Amino acid sequence: MGKIIFGDQILERSDVHIDLEDRGYQFGDGVYEVIRVYSGKLFTMKEHIERLFQSAQKIKLDISMSPEKIQELTEELVKENRVDFGSIYMQITRGAAPRTHMFPKPESNTKAVFTAYTNEVPRPVSLFEKGVAAITTEDIRWLRCDIKSLNLLPNVLAKQEATDYDCFEAILHRNGIVTEGSSSNAYIVKNGEVITHPADRLILNGITRQVLVELCKANGIPFVEKEFDLRDLKDADEVFISSTTSEVMPVIKLDVETVGDGTPGKITRKLQALFEARINQDTKVEI
Amino acid sequence: MGKIIFGDQILERSDVHIDLEDRGYQFGDGVYEVIRVYSGKLFTMKEHIERLFQSAQKIKLDISMSPEKIQELTEELVKENRVDFGSIYMQITRGAAPRTHMFPKPESNTKAVFTAYTNEVPRPVSLFEKGVAAITTEDIRWLRCDIKSLNLLPNVLAKQEATDYDCFEAILHRNGIVTEGSSSNAYIVKNGEVITHPADRLILNGITRQVLVELCKANGIPFVEKEFDLRDLKDADEVFISSTTSEVMPVIKLDVETVGDGTPGKITRKLQALFEARINQDTKVEI
Repeated sequence: MGKIIFGDQILERSDVHIDLEDRGYQFGDGVYEVIRVYSGKLFTMKEHIERLFQSAQKIKLDISMSPEKIQELTEELVKENRVDFGSIYMQITRGAAPRTHMFPKPESNTKAVFTAYTNEVPRPVSLFEKGVAAITTEDIRWLRCDIKSLNLLPNVLAKQEATDYDCFEAILHRNGIVTEGSSSNAYIVKNGEVITHPADRLILNGITRQVLVELCKANGIPFVEKEFDLRDLKDADEVFISSTTSEVMPVIKLDVETVGDGTPGKITRKLQALFEARINQDTKVEI
Repeated sequence: MGKIIFGDQILERSDVHIDLEDRGYQFGDGVYEVIRVYSGKLFTMKEHIERLFQSAQKIKLDISMSPEKIQELTEELVKENRVDFGSIYMQITRGAAPRTHMFPKPESNTKAVFTAYTNEVPRPVSLFEKGVAAITTEDIRWLRCDIKSLNLLPNVLAKQEATDYDCFEAILHRNGIVTEGSSSNAYIVKNGEVITHPADRLILNGITRQVLVELCKANGIPFVEKEFDLRDLKDADEVFISSTTSEVMPVIKLDVETVGDGTPGKITRKLQALFEARINQDTKVEI
């Protein structure tokens, strides 16, 4: 794990202690981001840091650092920890204060707590080629899934349910309408169109999703944001999920059923290739 | 705050450090309880500890301590910290492990992290007499509010909204159906009947609520668990909320409207008296 960002400093992990009354620990009162590192370079960093600020603003949390400062610390940490292929996890909480549900009063001078650390994480290349299995389960989350908050217990329970079935992901539905995965966005391909849930309050507008929107547009692949249900999911020609660490991941089995012919679909593979080209372009990897 | 329970030990606060990767800090992956102390005695302790185990079981979290051990530690801490009128806050998380949504694998030997501490908190006697103001706001929480989990961000936001309006509590409604308060159960009195939302997955079955059910039964006060909506709330003869620290709290103003004649209602006052008698009986306070 190497060194850690704590506040605006880079410290040894042994020097970082979280307070018992940190509101992140007692209320999940905070927001987070995960940014991918390819060949030592941060991918879509600005977009992630921008979303961190958006999430914070939606819960009225004052980050008390500039995006530029966070960007600077992030780049420094990745360099310091010599991350090659990996990720940086960052979170910010409303700080430590005597426990009451309402925010700490301004006069208490409670300061937001920013922490970040890195991990080495290889790209799951063989899964990209083979595809993964997923279950479907009820979306029991709150009604502000557009906020990337630390309140992740329903996501944890859904992911564990998938794991119990030896599956990679749980695709969630609210009253039959497919929203997204427990830690990914979910898509179907039908008659050549890529279809996914609109980016409203019921899903997180993934950064990978935003890149895919651009790539579809630039490459003439029809991309439609509209509701689709469990039946559409089961009848889809292709299914895939996307996230920062899963990139574009084909789903080849859903519950007990095979998707399409049981191999990654044509449009999914096209998007994988476009996404990889985009990574290479942005992080200037020699292929 | 005095000493702290950390695991199965009682320590100085300065010796308690929470790990950056504690799942409570990154996912809100844990459950909690608050138990009231009156005259140095713990009120409805067994019921609270039992509910802690129920909440843990619902999220498949192994507490790895017996209820008896937690009871013993709790009583010891209250004695050690010489709490007179106050409360003990306790929480347990799934422990510290490298961040992945799914539970840590059994072979990782990740251990649940139990922490507890005490506070002096006077009974809000003058509010019991005057009553409080509340707002109504949308219930945006997840669909397992029967679990007393650390995922409290929607509760935090609702309570802060109430605070912004100089109100004591936010009463939540889901599509117009009143569920409960942001940190309390909510009740109306209509034509002599006490009405509250059924104890299903949309509300927490408060320990104070459970005591009130008993007291109503024993004293011939009709108690009905059924759905009621915002119109019923506004048309109620009396409104009150209940919680461990608010006990039986009259609501005399709702949004901009006065409830009943703007003073605590007759049945609310009756329940306050019965509840106080129950406290005195259980904690043997000299009146």
